[in-house]
Amino acid sequence: MRIGFIGLGQMGSGMAGRLIAAGHEVSVYNRSPARAEPLVAQGARLAPTPADACTGDAVVTMVAEDAALETVVYGADGILNALPKGAIHISSSTISVALAERLTADHEKSGQRFVSAPVFGRPPAAATGQLFVVAAGEAGAIADAEPIFAAIGQRTFPLSDKPSAANLVKLSGNFLLACVIETLGEAMALTAKDGIDPHQYLELLTSTLFGAPAYKLYGTMIADRAFEPPGFAAPLGQKDIRLVLAAAEALQVPMPVASLLRDRFLTLRAIYGDNIDWAAVGALAARDAGMEK
Amino acid sequence: MRIGFIGLGQMGSGMAGRLIAAGHEVSVYNRSPARAEPLVAQGARLAPTPADACTGDAVVTMVAEDAALETVVYGADGILNALPKGAIHISSSTISVALAERLTADHEKSGQRFVSAPVFGRPPAAATGQLFVVAAGEAGAIADAEPIFAAIGQRTFPLSDKPSAANLVKLSGNFLLACVIETLGEAMALTAKDGIDPHQYLELLTSTLFGAPAYKLYGTMIADRAFEPPGFAAPLGQKDIRLVLAAAEALQVPMPVASLLRDRFLTLRAIYGDNIDWAAVGALAARDAGMEK
Amino acid sequence: MRIGFIGLGQMGSGMAGRLIAAGHEVSVYNRSPARAEPLVAQGARLAPTPADACTGDAVVTMVAEDAALETVVYGADGILNALPKGAIHISSSTISVALAERLTADHEKSGQRFVSAPVFGRPPAAATGQLFVVAAGEAGAIADAEPIFAAIGQRTFPLSDKPSAANLVKLSGNFLLACVIETLGEAMALTAKDGIDPHQYLELLTSTLFGAPAYKLYGTMIADRAFEPPGFAAPLGQKDIRLVLAAAEALQVPMPVASLLRDRFLTLRAIYGDNIDWAAVGALAARDAGMEK
Amino acid sequence: MRIGFIGLGQMGSGMAGRLIAAGHEVSVYNRSPARAEPLVAQGARLAPTPADACTGDAVVTMVAEDAALETVVYGADGILNALPKGAIHISSSTISVALAERLTADHEKSGQRFVSAPVFGRPPAAATGQLFVVAAGEAGAIADAEPIFAAIGQRTFPLSDKPSAANLVKLSGNFLLACVIETLGEAMALTAKDGIDPHQYLELLTSTLFGAPAYKLYGTMIADRAFEPPGFAAPLGQKDIRLVLAAAEALQVPMPVASLLRDRFLTLRAIYGDNIDWAAVGALAARDAGMEK
Repeated sequence: MRIGFIGLGQMGSGMAGRLIAAGHEVSVYNRSPARAEPLVAQGARLAPTPADACTGDAVVTMVAEDAALETVVYGADGILNALPKGAIHISSSTISVALAERLTADHEKSGQRFVSAPVFGRPPAAATGQLFVVAAGEAGAIADAEPIFAAIGQRTFPLSDKPSAANLVKLSGNFLLACVIETLGEAMALTAKDGIDPHQYLELLTSTLFGAPAYKLYGTMIADRAFEPPGFAAPLGQKDIRLVLAAAEALQVPMPVASLLRDRFLTLRAIYGDNIDWAAVGALAARDAGMEK
Repeated sequence: MRIGFIGLGQMGSGMAGRLIAAGHEVSVYNRSPARAEPLVAQGARLAPTPADACTGDAVVTMVAEDAALETVVYGADGILNALPKGAIHISSSTISVALAERLTADHEKSGQRFVSAPVFGRPPAAATGQLFVVAAGEAGAIADAEPIFAAIGQRTFPLSDKPSAANLVKLSGNFLLACVIETLGEAMALTAKDGIDPHQYLELLTSTLFGAPAYKLYGTMIADRAFEPPGFAAPLGQKDIRLVLAAAEALQVPMPVASLLRDRFLTLRAIYGDNIDWAAVGALAARDAGMEK
Repeated sequence: MRIGFIGLGQMGSGMAGRLIAAGHEVSVYNRSPARAEPLVAQGARLAPTPADACTGDAVVTMVAEDAALETVVYGADGILNALPKGAIHISSSTISVALAERLTADHEKSGQRFVSAPVFGRPPAAATGQLFVVAAGEAGAIADAEPIFAAIGQRTFPLSDKPSAANLVKLSGNFLLACVIETLGEAMALTAKDGIDPHQYLELLTSTLFGAPAYKLYGTMIADRAFEPPGFAAPLGQKDIRLVLAAAEALQVPMPVASLLRDRFLTLRAIYGDNIDWAAVGALAARDAGMEK
Repeated sequence: MRIGFIGLGQMGSGMAGRLIAAGHEVSVYNRSPARAEPLVAQGARLAPTPADACTGDAVVTMVAEDAALETVVYGADGILNALPKGAIHISSSTISVALAERLTADHEKSGQRFVSAPVFGRPPAAATGQLFVVAAGEAGAIADAEPIFAAIGQRTFPLSDKPSAANLVKLSGNFLLACVIETLGEAMALTAKDGIDPHQYLELLTSTLFGAPAYKLYGTMIADRAFEPPGFAAPLGQKDIRLVLAAAEALQVPMPVASLLRDRFLTLRAIYGDNIDWAAVGALAARDAGMEK
């Protein structure tokens, strides 16, 4: 397929690389073009503007947040003006439900197709095509996009014909990860203050009830107090909780643990600044217990 | 070894059965003796009182709560009066940290040894010797008790020479399970209110980020609203959160999600009564969202 | 003074009436002009557009929310285009801190002066000039506006030269009122479930420690379950908590009780709808205690 | 009347002094007898044991907590053994609902009468007979005790024939005071971080919506960060919240703000120790906002 790819951060670079490796004809765009060089070396064409990445069958966007996606979609050189009728915009960014709904309506008016396809997985999974893809949108569009999903992911979960449903699921997944961080943080503060070694405790938890990788990953970061440099920075985690709460408000669903996380992220940034991993939320229970400053 | 076993509920019966199967000489006591019959049929000796189960090298207790354990330990016919000097009381019940500390002191005064050895796992794991055993106490006592642990569990985690540490770890594990219930309940209320099928959602979560059995087990119960009859009844779950909070208060560790769970259990029992699984906490977010009464 | 007045709800009508009674020359604008009639009968001039209310020394706005104020300010016939240089826009609505900041900047660019002057008090206080006025903005502008404040209020609190500070104070005041509702609701659920008569309980509280009118007012509504028709509707209360949380997020101040209130309002609207007084938040603790549906 | 008075702390000394001044024949007991001297100088008789204070028509107890009251009631030289049949034990301490229930039953068995009569007010009010008395118990006993209440208080609120109801009301009142501290703390952190002067802010609040003395008292302490030496020490405040939560658990009433306060007190003591006023809970929101260590 002829595919444009917009947004070459750690995740996007890996995903675009997989598309090239799978034999697709890929045009890449990034705000700072230097990040495109390795992909050009692999055979991608450099697109100087978002519009230049919209000449094929589909364009994939993988950017940091709503504002960035609005820029590449709604700008003068943006996707909405450039994408051919019938072509597909595949949005993999973690964006708000509200923006997904707006994009659905606007692409439909423009005769384009829109699929929300956020992914679960971290940069190494992106680089090796091991992501999980949650896809929502019109069934035909999802089917047409399947070669793309096959290149970037180990499995596709077709969810709904309403694109924003995939965004809600993605946000809820990040909420559940943040819950692991918070609740592990509380349990580890409790046991550590009693003198139990945190690594031994974590080994016990993850060998028995809590084998899921999130417990191992975040538990180790909490035990080691290894939050810098950030793998996933606090402001991004905070953004996701903000989007979860916005969706929950629109749907009128009270989520008390999400509200707690909202406050935790405010404390985290007020005290430790922005250049810290979101897993540092898991150190706040210990702080409140007087175990650290 | 010659072993007494006190407390023949679903968990205790399975564990005592494993000890018999492993060739130990087992005396069994239960408040209502009828529950002892199947074990007697397997070769156990019936002990008419707790004291009668205290004639060997060790006695294992597996009862429902602090009060029950206090009765079998401190009663006139209880363990403290009957257990020979040097013999080991292995306490596998989910009890308070405070009671574990008291038992440690009292057994030491009586020249007996005390090991806290709570277990992770449900009745089927108990019946097949697949429990995880968290053992804390004097190292020699843990070593001497190892044949018992080997019979009932798939792995022993020696934790500390302070018995109560094992109880704290057990309680913290149950806290983390309750957190899975609560946070899944919030995420499932959010996505279900948007029209996403809960089983499809759960399949997606457990196939990707949250493979740990707790997510599958409790997520399915929440999706099916299958809370009766209870596998683990709400009052027992509430008791565990109460004990977590008591330990957290003693250690001065604020645990906001544990506090939330405390309130959730009060609501659960006030509205649905006691004969319901603790997983029903996971339906309360949906209730607050007006999705059910 | 020659004064325009925009927004003739229960509060605005009372305030405009006081300005007329004080001898000012008042032009009134309301989206639905019927509400202007009583004031015209008292001597006001009817302004057909917001711009028509901007021909004097000052224009006062008292509308329901950010969007309504944005319309009257930024519309083609709006205040920003019409107000003479040097004239004052006095904003008494309960709006966001962010909008106050934006208005401050935009009026400055247009050579106009801007004062935030939200008020404390309910419609009867507005009708009798007994409001409390919190005024923030450039000192000279506050001084020039004093005759207006004197007509509508019993006391003016000049707060800061930054207009948005007054909005933040107003929002924080509404937050504290909502806290009275929530915490009284909890205390009254507790005592009522023990069989204590809620009116007797309230009499005791308000005769001793809690004489402030808010306790009497909201406590009586909670005791009587008298929430309809709304005096201050749930969606407005929810909006204020939303604005408090937005300001708190911008300032990085975690406010756990505000977060709780956010969830309470979601539950309130999900279950009881929108046509209910915000004091009904005070009935939710009783609902969670199984005392009502 | 011939009255015994047990417990001569700041509150008790004032109350006993009022009884003497009103012409009653008063015997006083305190664990450390030095505190009785000023009252003996005023005409009281020194009782060497609690039993010695039980020779009249009534005995009033005003001690710090459940354990202290249990000692003076249930000890060998205690009230239960010594108080004549028909005489009244008036318990003014802030104790648990459960202990009040136990005392009710035990005094009834002993043929004595029991009235719970906790008071609202601080030491200066005790010294001047300006307390508020919440009285619950059998109506005849309350009537017989009225001369005592008249001497110590400005008003008596007869509440119920169930003594523990008065204790619940007292605890709920202290809960509401703690709520004032917490919510003022949040509002003051919010406005102070925006640069608003806390004293000016407080003056505004207490001159308008929140005239109740609690807002003035605690708001000033928070604005001044004047928490030492404690007027009402953190461990006592924590105890009251613990008793509220225990009563709420028994009645199955979830109280989320009480749960929050529980965690706040744990943080307060973990970080600042015990020798601090409970009003310091109102500084924790600012701490979480990074405004202080």
